[in-house]
Amino acid sequence: MTEWQRTDETGVQRSAASTVGIGFLGCGTVGAEAVRILQNRSEEILRRTGVALEVRRVAVRDLSRDRDVPLPADAFTSDPLLVVQDPRVDLVVEVIGGIDPANFLLTEALKAGKPVVTANKELMAKFGPELLELAESAGVDILFEAAVGGGIPIIRPVTESLAGESARRIIAILNGTTNYILTRMTEDGVDLAEVLADAQRLGYAEADPTADIDGHDAAQKAAILASLAFGTRVHDEDVYREGIRDVRAHDVEMAARLGYVVKLVAIADLVPWADTFGVAVRVHPAMIPLTHPLASVRLSFNAIFLEGESVGELMFYGRGAGAGPTAVGLVGDVIDAARNLRQQARGPHLPLPATCPIVPIEDVHSHFYVRLEVADEPGVLSGVAGVFGRHEVSIQKVLQEGRAEDAELVLVTHRGREADVRATLRELVSLTAVKRLAAVFRVINGEEESSFS
Amino acid sequence: MTEWQRTDETGVQRSAASTVGIGFLGCGTVGAEAVRILQNRSEEILRRTGVALEVRRVAVRDLSRDRDVPLPADAFTSDPLLVVQDPRVDLVVEVIGGIDPANFLLTEALKAGKPVVTANKELMAKFGPELLELAESAGVDILFEAAVGGGIPIIRPVTESLAGESARRIIAILNGTTNYILTRMTEDGVDLAEVLADAQRLGYAEADPTADIDGHDAAQKAAILASLAFGTRVHDEDVYREGIRDVRAHDVEMAARLGYVVKLVAIADLVPWADTFGVAVRVHPAMIPLTHPLASVRLSFNAIFLEGESVGELMFYGRGAGAGPTAVGLVGDVIDAARNLRQQARGPHLPLPATCPIVPIEDVHSHFYVRLEVADEPGVLSGVAGVFGRHEVSIQKVLQEGRAEDAELVLVTHRGREADVRATLRELVSLTAVKRLAAVFRVINGEEESSFS
Repeated sequence: MTEWQRTDETGVQRSAASTVGIGFLGCGTVGAEAVRILQNRSEEILRRTGVALEVRRVAVRDLSRDRDVPLPADAFTSDPLLVVQDPRVDLVVEVIGGIDPANFLLTEALKAGKPVVTANKELMAKFGPELLELAESAGVDILFEAAVGGGIPIIRPVTESLAGESARRIIAILNGTTNYILTRMTEDGVDLAEVLADAQRLGYAEADPTADIDGHDAAQKAAILASLAFGTRVHDEDVYREGIRDVRAHDVEMAARLGYVVKLVAIADLVPWADTFGVAVRVHPAMIPLTHPLASVRLSFNAIFLEGESVGELMFYGRGAGAGPTAVGLVGDVIDAARNLRQQARGPHLPLPATCPIVPIEDVHSHFYVRLEVADEPGVLSGVAGVFGRHEVSIQKVLQEGRAEDAELVLVTHRGREADVRATLRELVSLTAVKRLAAVFRVINGEEESSFS
Repeated sequence: MTEWQRTDETGVQRSAASTVGIGFLGCGTVGAEAVRILQNRSEEILRRTGVALEVRRVAVRDLSRDRDVPLPADAFTSDPLLVVQDPRVDLVVEVIGGIDPANFLLTEALKAGKPVVTANKELMAKFGPELLELAESAGVDILFEAAVGGGIPIIRPVTESLAGESARRIIAILNGTTNYILTRMTEDGVDLAEVLADAQRLGYAEADPTADIDGHDAAQKAAILASLAFGTRVHDEDVYREGIRDVRAHDVEMAARLGYVVKLVAIADLVPWADTFGVAVRVHPAMIPLTHPLASVRLSFNAIFLEGESVGELMFYGRGAGAGPTAVGLVGDVIDAARNLRQQARGPHLPLPATCPIVPIEDVHSHFYVRLEVADEPGVLSGVAGVFGRHEVSIQKVLQEGRAEDAELVLVTHRGREADVRATLRELVSLTAVKRLAAVFRVINGEEESSFS
């Protein structure tokens, strides 16, 4: 029994020395909400979890701003290193974001034997394995539940609950802004530019929406998830990435007619590759069957759909961003890391050496949706189909749409290798009957899935 | 650094003494699958989690049966107490089910300082708090992820990830057999008896389906979930329970016309009651809006939908039963408990004193669907509406259906107190124009929910 164990039968009294002092690096909307939960709910947390916590020091850029948190003014400092070095700070929470100075500060904290909790997806996607290595040497935790899926518990389930499982595939909606935009495009039939302007007005999208729209945010989260699920290092630069800028209302509508919905998805799977197994991780818009559990994930919600060898299909759904959900993710980690610290124990996060090769997108197999603007004349389909055939990409479904100037050919392929499909497309646009390659989407095919339909 | 820490740079070599010996009580389909995962994947588990495990002893009722597990014949015994007492067994996994002798055996294991992993929902629903108390005194873990939702990580997220969150409500589909039956009734328009016979033939339902059909299984799981989510003891006998025996194809069809789907749900919420807050936990069929995330949970899948004060809405979806999923739940717990054992640490499970009163069903508020067979004559609706009004239950929607002998009145109420609705129904059947109270369902009203619809 260590000092922090119960000292009386109510289970509430603990010695003052057992309280874990917490330091915050950053106190924006997420940080402030986490401070409020930790301070206002500290008695309830003690009663429910046996862990006594106190926020003691907070580093902020602007000392003059009112943070609306229950802390005395002298808890704040503009020097984050003072928080890390403060002897009354036992555990460091990082909500600054970005690489510098977050990486330096967390490295210092871990070297000083202080566990770290972070919501920093960029940092974990780029330097996660190094930080995990450092945490292991120091014998303390680095936890990052809030870095992926906001308030959705996904890191802990993948790392702990599924520790004995062999993951096969993850398909996830990891970016709320793009899911909001695609939901509005689907349900209101409007174009991207219009919804984006709306979303920016409502505060759902940043003034510079690049990180969301072009898939950078989702790629960072996908790298973290894939690393944990497959037990091998995946850097965010290993993630193939296409954003939603080219998604047109016309294809969203065509998807609905074919029984699909367009979503920006992150897909990670383990595939046979070059005489071994490799991990393929990519973020791109895809058509998902309306019967798939991910199809009903609307607006700014996120969801992670996971297929395991023994466990079958799992899905985790919830708010992937926002102050409240993200703060809840941080607080769960703080309680966990604090309990471990007081027991001189560590959680299950091991470093992630690159044990598995990354499969290049060219070698990934998918179904494809291809929309071609074509001449309205006999023999076009036969010519187009011939090109697919020569590249060994077989066609599952064809729709001939429109007449005269508006004639279109929409094709959905069977599973084909990305490089073969790309070669097919290059040859197609050289046909005189093909006026334009209007759209290409990868398709997640429900018919290959086992249990839904 | 304790002995079990890495001994070389590959991270795989550990001293033999650090291996955690596991004893199984029971080796049916779930137990055998868990043994296979632990034995066949032990190197991968060591590499990924740093925990070395070995199954050393297994208690079975029938020694002559082949279990198809990678264990020598002398690992088996017919005396479960020998497994618990075996000095080479450091950790006990219980998959016998039921109260006796499971309760005695796990009590002995905990007293001997051996952590326990169990899939036993009945035991945890009835004696969970006592076992948690014992585990705390012994300073070891009792983990039970597989007892609720099979392979769906739900216990760990609720206890750890959401440790700092204030749960408001849980709505869950916790029984795969009844969800399979209701899905078939909804999609194929058939009656319960027909689907049940089918399900029994296919092995989806037991020969004696009472535990599933009458909601006992779901009530035990609901008691466990509610206890953890609200931090207060809920016994399975505290759960109000109605099964699906009275669900008719006609009402399933009527639900669809009104925009609902019928599901057997477990609902737990914290409600103002008798000058304080109480926990109301009930299992019954309910009509769920088609736009609710739970509405798309089909066939034998389970899902737990949770609303928290800060985190908003979360849903956890997957296979709630079956050897593979349940074994994955057990193995995750075994790894966690073994790691804690080697670090002389404990997880977050504290005892659950009854801090919160249980609200009787009479004081629970719901929307209701009421179907009445009525005389086809003027003034019936006015008479019926008058009865609702006198009991202060207001009507949201009315459908008058059929003519002559088949005349029916279908009403959906606003939120009303259960006792008032029951008084209304008693008075309604005394009206001469009301021939029969044909059906009553509680309705989960989408209009009150915040984010979906």
